[in-house]
Amino acid sequence: MEGMTDSPTHGPLRIALCQMNATVGDIAGNERKILDGIAEAREQGAQLVLFPELAITGYPPEDLLLKEHFLADARAAVDRIAAVTEGIVALVGFPEREDDVYNALAVLADGELHGIYRKLYLPNYGVFDEARYFQSGTEAGLIELAGIRVGLSICEDIWEPGPPASTEARAGATVIVNLSASPYYAGRGRQRERMLAQRARDNNCVVAYCALVGGQDELVFDGHSLVLDHRGEVIARAGQFTEELLVATVDPQAAATHRLRDARHRAAVRTEHEDPPTLARFPLQPLSSEPPERLRIGGPVAELLSPVAEVYAALVLGLRDYVAKNGFSRVVLGLSGGIDSALVAAIAVDALGPGGVSVAVMPSPHSSLATQSDARLLADNLGVERFEFAIAPAMDAYESTLGEVFADRAPDITEENLQARIRGNLLMALSNKFGWLVLATGNKSEMSVGYSTLYGDLAGGFAVIKDVYKTRVYELAEHVNAVAGGERIPRSIIDRAPSAELRPDQRDEDSLPPYAVLDPILDAYVEEDLGREQLRLRGFHADDVEHVVRLVDRAEYKRRQAPPGIKITSRAFGRDRRVPITNRYGG
Amino acid sequence: MEGMTDSPTHGPLRIALCQMNATVGDIAGNERKILDGIAEAREQGAQLVLFPELAITGYPPEDLLLKEHFLADARAAVDRIAAVTEGIVALVGFPEREDDVYNALAVLADGELHGIYRKLYLPNYGVFDEARYFQSGTEAGLIELAGIRVGLSICEDIWEPGPPASTEARAGATVIVNLSASPYYAGRGRQRERMLAQRARDNNCVVAYCALVGGQDELVFDGHSLVLDHRGEVIARAGQFTEELLVATVDPQAAATHRLRDARHRAAVRTEHEDPPTLARFPLQPLSSEPPERLRIGGPVAELLSPVAEVYAALVLGLRDYVAKNGFSRVVLGLSGGIDSALVAAIAVDALGPGGVSVAVMPSPHSSLATQSDARLLADNLGVERFEFAIAPAMDAYESTLGEVFADRAPDITEENLQARIRGNLLMALSNKFGWLVLATGNKSEMSVGYSTLYGDLAGGFAVIKDVYKTRVYELAEHVNAVAGGERIPRSIIDRAPSAELRPDQRDEDSLPPYAVLDPILDAYVEEDLGREQLRLRGFHADDVEHVVRLVDRAEYKRRQAPPGIKITSRAFGRDRRVPITNRYGG
Repeated sequence: MEGMTDSPTHGPLRIALCQMNATVGDIAGNERKILDGIAEAREQGAQLVLFPELAITGYPPEDLLLKEHFLADARAAVDRIAAVTEGIVALVGFPEREDDVYNALAVLADGELHGIYRKLYLPNYGVFDEARYFQSGTEAGLIELAGIRVGLSICEDIWEPGPPASTEARAGATVIVNLSASPYYAGRGRQRERMLAQRARDNNCVVAYCALVGGQDELVFDGHSLVLDHRGEVIARAGQFTEELLVATVDPQAAATHRLRDARHRAAVRTEHEDPPTLARFPLQPLSSEPPERLRIGGPVAELLSPVAEVYAALVLGLRDYVAKNGFSRVVLGLSGGIDSALVAAIAVDALGPGGVSVAVMPSPHSSLATQSDARLLADNLGVERFEFAIAPAMDAYESTLGEVFADRAPDITEENLQARIRGNLLMALSNKFGWLVLATGNKSEMSVGYSTLYGDLAGGFAVIKDVYKTRVYELAEHVNAVAGGERIPRSIIDRAPSAELRPDQRDEDSLPPYAVLDPILDAYVEEDLGREQLRLRGFHADDVEHVVRLVDRAEYKRRQAPPGIKITSRAFGRDRRVPITNRYGG
Repeated sequence: MEGMTDSPTHGPLRIALCQMNATVGDIAGNERKILDGIAEAREQGAQLVLFPELAITGYPPEDLLLKEHFLADARAAVDRIAAVTEGIVALVGFPEREDDVYNALAVLADGELHGIYRKLYLPNYGVFDEARYFQSGTEAGLIELAGIRVGLSICEDIWEPGPPASTEARAGATVIVNLSASPYYAGRGRQRERMLAQRARDNNCVVAYCALVGGQDELVFDGHSLVLDHRGEVIARAGQFTEELLVATVDPQAAATHRLRDARHRAAVRTEHEDPPTLARFPLQPLSSEPPERLRIGGPVAELLSPVAEVYAALVLGLRDYVAKNGFSRVVLGLSGGIDSALVAAIAVDALGPGGVSVAVMPSPHSSLATQSDARLLADNLGVERFEFAIAPAMDAYESTLGEVFADRAPDITEENLQARIRGNLLMALSNKFGWLVLATGNKSEMSVGYSTLYGDLAGGFAVIKDVYKTRVYELAEHVNAVAGGERIPRSIIDRAPSAELRPDQRDEDSLPPYAVLDPILDAYVEEDLGREQLRLRGFHADDVEHVVRLVDRAEYKRRQAPPGIKITSRAFGRDRRVPITNRYGG
């Protein structure tokens, strides 16, 4: 076998990472972005250009992958892209149709397809269904650029500590590239960065991680592409939640030299017996004729957003892309004067501009004057179009229609839900008449316990903050005002005790534990899968546990009919959490 | 290795197949049914009793399998069941938590757990997500009952032509048992029966296939347990869509004798080198002391339902179990005088009795007198409680509320949707006030093309016929009347041209191709995944193809918020078909 000890001496390598926003199914549009990325990378002197996982089709294409003609169309795009790869090596993610279907990477250069690497580890947990579509690859893969060996991997492949990266490093790779589409949740970017640093150190390799960016239904891909040197130091970082062509110069020779001093690595080389295939060898123009700034090792290093700014940016991008990629130009939402709809309105304005947002204030006889005037003030602050609809006439109509049947029954949740549904109907009427997307404004705490009305406040095409617990809603509202340097969201909205205002003097905390108690129980039950007993052992009050677990389980049927929304936690409702409705298990 | 040539001579074996209706998560209830099944099997002289796949937890338990305490509870139930297995061998499906989680089968006898077989093939397509939860087993498995070798398998294992069944047969098994949970779709039972006959012949084995029965959210399990002799002849068959303990006497010796004459089998034996483990050996009481009818080979053979009766039975059971297992005692639906709601009402009455069904007739100014009187006649025929609500007052209220904003716009789909939503609100008000489950009445043709109103006619907890194409709705309505021997569903409902009656003189075929044209296109596009070009090659008109494909793709957002309903085709909307909403692929 060939180890690093007999590697020749190499100069630096210049890599471009095309952190692109692909759209699922838009093969022609994605192809254009890839062609632009190749042109721009070449212009910036890159010798190797990376694109994200399944860049051709967008990620995740889900059951489009079951259509043979879809796979054929994706392959045709790869072949067209290959034709323009003069003087540069491009690694492009695509679904490969062969004896089976593979999540693959095409090695394109000099106008040709030189080889294909197939993803080894197919995630099939959380939001992932890759085993539904793909067969696993069986081999690590290398390419060689003027003697520099580059190891290949796709997303999940590099989360595993061993092969393919270890196999590739032992076969002489000094650079490991990873094409990725990694869904965001709060803190995921920093976690990924630590993992990649570990992989770089594990393997004494430069790591170049090229990430997808953009919103796709419930998912946001946060970008945050990275280049790390062999010591695990970040030497280039793309911005989060934005398209960018990140170009960095790396020093494979430094990795090779360092290995000679690393006894662990030498020992590992001795125990490794099988070499991965080298898919292609390319000569490269040396970089020595380049301007000096291109020879400087590293590249731009974007600053990381604060934890709260990161979540806010995810919500803005997730909404913007859902709206734009589905062909809408405007959204509408109900403003109650409460904090949830206030936050969603601010996110919408930051995603689409004030001209892309309309709001409706829809007071009932139970709405206080304070909440109504707060709603109007907020709309003015945000500069959005405002409608006003009183819902009392429709309430009266339903009351008289149902009066006889309900004659001997006291008012209850029925009448409360009718108010919410009238508001939902009015928003949907605006949607139908003007072609706007309705935003639902419920938060994760409500979604969890079913404190929401199906076809009422749950009505809408997109539920922006459905994965945001109420306690985090407050943090995000404070963030909005901190960024604005003032009360963009009126202070009284933030300070008022939460209420659905569906009956006189109603308060959320009359029927639910305080959110500061509720949210940690929800997190432990929904995201950590703890049982009643474990929840009590963690110190939650037995009555609260009993109450909350029962509410969460009973609300599954509502969640099944809720609009999609943006995942920002480790387990969102939706594809991420697949719980039966018919379920007698007591939690 | 040991082949069949050295097998001793055996008498008959008496097997019970407990075709039970398990409830997901109801470990205590499922345990009781299993204990009852064991007692009854023993009483009927069975030496071996089979239960369905994951009988302990119900199927599919989905993300309950991610809870460690759920797995522990399931295991505790297995241990309790083991304690009552004196004088009988019981094979019980359960999720096994070991180094990983397995879809497993416990061999219980004489008060003990003797061994565990792990499912080899994990389906991860269609509605199945087994790779999300389980690790594959790696070995075939045998048990030996007084010298009779019995090969073990779980569901998907026997759909594969080779191992584990072939391995087990070659190691001397003359009986192959299969514990199953196989979701129904039209024609699936006959297909399964042909497959099992082939496996019996392939392996020269008796095959005993024990199936789950019952409804679980979108799925119906049709029962239809089978025992086939080594020539593939059905010698016992349980009823479809019903709980049953099927007891059959089989003749393993006949299989063994036949093998001696089967050259193919002998050749196969010679090429097989590895024996599966024998998990347990049990002495058995000989059957010779049994009454003579127990010695007769075979068992009861239920007649198969006709294709249309089968689908109808699936819908009845699916609805009955959804209602009962979710703790409802009554359903309510709107009767429009059209055929869809008429069929759903008939199904509901057959599932729950007339006392379990209320209907609401909710005419608008666009409702013809004929449809109204048909709706009333149908309600009378079915003997159900009827409410009448005029929706004009609520229509007027919305019109005046929205009048100013819509002043310069002509009436359009907005006003039509408002009518549907008012009806949805009224039904939901009945649901909220009285605790009834609302049934949505849309069919698959409408669900496909989005010819339905979100939060309007799509409102409800369960959409009984959402997987039934309109052309099949007619067949089922005729079936209802044929069974009743008269016009249980009034003839005028069946004969009238379909209309939503949301504007004057509206007919479905004004905006859609005739259903006889539409449904085959939908079937080819939705279930077969054909593209535009392939659809045209199949002879569909290019304009129809273009129109239908666009409508189907655009309606994905509606389907995502639709209630669950019963799968009766090879690809239903729901877990079965996972298509992105944000999707620019043109079909």
